[in-house]
Amino acid sequence: MYINKAFELVKWTEGQTGMNPAVGCVIVKDDRIVGIGAHLTEGEAHAEVNAINMAGIHAKGATLYCTLEPCSHHGKTPPCTKKIVNAGIKKVVYATSDVTLSSGMKYMQSEGIEVEKVECKAIDDYYAPFFMSKTASLPYVTIKMATTIDGKTADDENISKWITNEKSRAHAHKVRYGMDAIMVGYNTYKEDTPTLDARLYKDKYIKKVIVTNGPFVLNTQDDNDYDRSRLIIVSTIEQHIEGVTVIHVPHLSPEHILKALYKQRIRNLLIEGGMQTIRTFIEAKCYNEIHHYIAPKLLGGTSKHQFLTTDTHSSMRDMTQFNLVSVNQFDDDVLLIYRKA
Amino acid sequence: MYINKAFELVKWTEGQTGMNPAVGCVIVKDDRIVGIGAHLTEGEAHAEVNAINMAGIHAKGATLYCTLEPCSHHGKTPPCTKKIVNAGIKKVVYATSDVTLSSGMKYMQSEGIEVEKVECKAIDDYYAPFFMSKTASLPYVTIKMATTIDGKTADDENISKWITNEKSRAHAHKVRYGMDAIMVGYNTYKEDTPTLDARLYKDKYIKKVIVTNGPFVLNTQDDNDYDRSRLIIVSTIEQHIEGVTVIHVPHLSPEHILKALYKQRIRNLLIEGGMQTIRTFIEAKCYNEIHHYIAPKLLGGTSKHQFLTTDTHSSMRDMTQFNLVSVNQFDDDVLLIYRKA
Repeated sequence: MYINKAFELVKWTEGQTGMNPAVGCVIVKDDRIVGIGAHLTEGEAHAEVNAINMAGIHAKGATLYCTLEPCSHHGKTPPCTKKIVNAGIKKVVYATSDVTLSSGMKYMQSEGIEVEKVECKAIDDYYAPFFMSKTASLPYVTIKMATTIDGKTADDENISKWITNEKSRAHAHKVRYGMDAIMVGYNTYKEDTPTLDARLYKDKYIKKVIVTNGPFVLNTQDDNDYDRSRLIIVSTIEQHIEGVTVIHVPHLSPEHILKALYKQRIRNLLIEGGMQTIRTFIEAKCYNEIHHYIAPKLLGGTSKHQFLTTDTHSSMRDMTQFNLVSVNQFDDDVLLIYRKA
Repeated sequence: MYINKAFELVKWTEGQTGMNPAVGCVIVKDDRIVGIGAHLTEGEAHAEVNAINMAGIHAKGATLYCTLEPCSHHGKTPPCTKKIVNAGIKKVVYATSDVTLSSGMKYMQSEGIEVEKVECKAIDDYYAPFFMSKTASLPYVTIKMATTIDGKTADDENISKWITNEKSRAHAHKVRYGMDAIMVGYNTYKEDTPTLDARLYKDKYIKKVIVTNGPFVLNTQDDNDYDRSRLIIVSTIEQHIEGVTVIHVPHLSPEHILKALYKQRIRNLLIEGGMQTIRTFIEAKCYNEIHHYIAPKLLGGTSKHQFLTTDTHSSMRDMTQFNLVSVNQFDDDVLLIYRKA
């Protein structure tokens, strides 16, 4: 199916399209691919436009396959549907409807183009976070956890380097690369001095969010123009730090933090720790997804560094339910991806 | 491959061959299957014998595929290799070598039969527990755990019914069916009155092992001939209970318990709880495999009912390492099977 080839292009360009979703497009005529396109950079040409440009005169009478319903609104670029009509495309096949914009489908149909929506769960699942974030005007929040089989995030000496294997950590970098920002609490920032980048992948400008309810002091590692510009400090204290974005919130609640970050154009947020920060977001139910890496090890010991302990009493009658989105294996490590049900 | 067909028969008969391993056999002549056999019941005909009997005169000049190296010793039945030679089998192909008995391969080769050992990891993995148990003269011990994502085995009110979904529990019954015995601690026996059977499968006589360091009192549910005969009590106290097997051990250590159970012809043991019993076996490193069912739920609360907490301090330098044997999915539940590395 050509729609799967279009989806393949989405996977190639994930993480490089800013606030826009990655989109893939393939144009087919007489069983030959005559155009291939992807949305490469926010503000530049959409997938359909790139593919039509590649197809040139061959676009006339061809079928266009697109992972997402072509847009019919004027954003930073003109509407794709107009380009599709002008190019003489005969038929459009797409997987996921755009629920946030005016219907491209209706416009194209009114112009005499045959439009078909195909059911593709994998592609719908892929775009779900994008539309959830856009509809709620909040970042889509993913919590990352790496534990042993018995759910320990560190040993009793607070050592956690490394619970998971190299392949898992490489995958975690790939996940980071798809994010707009990565958040840690201030303690984790000071103690671990994490780089929070996707350094195994090409150098992407991923924001580093630090939340603190006290004054923020820059780590010496971050004392350069590049790292300062990556930082977003969310603090209860008003503070000016040269080159650093400091957001003042009166209360450091997850809701306030997320609203403030969305205004900073953070649509995809990964929370990596520490446990106190993760616990706060879980208790406030301010998250969408959990990435749970499980290493094939038993630690035992105390419950000091356990996946989740809360001050509230737990009860089977009041559990948060999830859907299992995917199961991934990295040698003897497993990654379970859950989305809140 | 015919060897995979033979392995299919193994899966069909798993759990019904007592102290013997399940074995599958297929005989092929001129690209046609002329005989099919499996070992069905301990003490009765082996897979090769059943297959040769089915093949009749067609066995002459045929190739015999067998999951396990044919035996060449007199056990409860005459050696299979003799039958193979007498039937005029031309070639024997097998997957896993029998390391515990005299070599069937050599005998058959000396009789002019072409013998080929094929590499099949799935079949080797299948027989590994059998040979580990036989070599160590100890049961092969599987620990079963069912937890939430955050590793909770029960909520703070000690309610655990049901963390996992129906499909997971049905699978757990299938696993039970492959076992010779299921063990729980005395507290679990008294509080949960577990049936510990494989009731979703055909009624198999699975032993119920209860360990206690005090006097044993029969649950009223078990007060019948059938359930009494299923019970094996391992106790520090000498006691006579009509119709019940009571094993007296001076110390209730995992090592002593396992040695005593092997003498009772328990080769496959499943430990289902409670946490105290599981902890004791984990701390003594007296187990081979962990079956970890993970339900898509977060419980939070205290760490009272956590997968594993121990009195000893935990350290990354001293962790038990596992190999991930398989990943299984039951709707949104996951089962991870680990074998000690």
